[in-house]
Amino acid sequence: MVDILHRVGVKTPTPEKVYEALTTVEGLAGWWTVDTKGDGGEAGGALQFRFPPVGGFDMEVVETRPGERVLWRVVDGPEEWVGTTVDWELHQSGEYTIVLFKHQGWREPVEFMHHCSTKWGSFLMSLKSLVETGEGTPAPRDVQISDWH
Amino acid sequence: MVDILHRVGVKTPTPEKVYEALTTVEGLAGWWTVDTKGDGGEAGGALQFRFPPVGGFDMEVVETRPGERVLWRVVDGPEEWVGTTVDWELHQSGEYTIVLFKHQGWREPVEFMHHCSTKWGSFLMSLKSLVETGEGTPAPRDVQISDWH
Repeated sequence: MVDILHRVGVKTPTPEKVYEALTTVEGLAGWWTVDTKGDGGEAGGALQFRFPPVGGFDMEVVETRPGERVLWRVVDGPEEWVGTTVDWELHQSGEYTIVLFKHQGWREPVEFMHHCSTKWGSFLMSLKSLVETGEGTPAPRDVQISDWH
Repeated sequence: MVDILHRVGVKTPTPEKVYEALTTVEGLAGWWTVDTKGDGGEAGGALQFRFPPVGGFDMEVVETRPGERVLWRVVDGPEEWVGTTVDWELHQSGEYTIVLFKHQGWREPVEFMHHCSTKWGSFLMSLKSLVETGEGTPAPRDVQISDWH
């Protein structure tokens, strides 16, 4: 089993704004994709992320602990993603909210997984920018990293 | 065992410029750290990368196949890095040179590994920018991703 791991630090006095950016449609639409729908605030909720024209991801919210953790399970999307989990752990370190990110449960380290790893890193920088400056780079104005977008 | 994986596509007609950026001191200094010394052109060579004031990495060049692959082994640096390998596979896909990156052999998925994963993604974007525009963002003007730089 292979995982995608990332760590960013968001300059903000408490984890509150990062947590909001992970649990509200407005927040998620500000850094991942503007085409976000659903309810990310509580366990049992469902979120739909779309990236026209190529598709997207449906997530089940598995756990939410305000300011500390958000956990999603992928219920629909590319077959490599279905059944994987996306785990966000937050803690405060001085002036920074630290985000420890894990996209776990990939069956094989396929080329698409390499792509998603780099793309997640780029979107985490978008999340950081959203909280620090009020402006992220969600799809469709996300940073292009390759021929696969 | 856990690996760091990434994939970027560099808009360039052949892998030649990306290969140069991975095997020459001038190239490496243009996207990773300006403080690069050694000889990266052939197996058996040694490369020293420094990031003042925090240290750096010494690499042994294990394999070089022009336009196709570069493989390094970490011989000195942070203890989590020593003995790991950094593998660069290149292939052409239309207008893009695809870089498949693997930093393998980490013993544990420690917090520092999460950081290095995001940081590698950011440096791969610097490599892409260097080849596409002539300008990368090597240390010390690298993109800050957190309190750990």
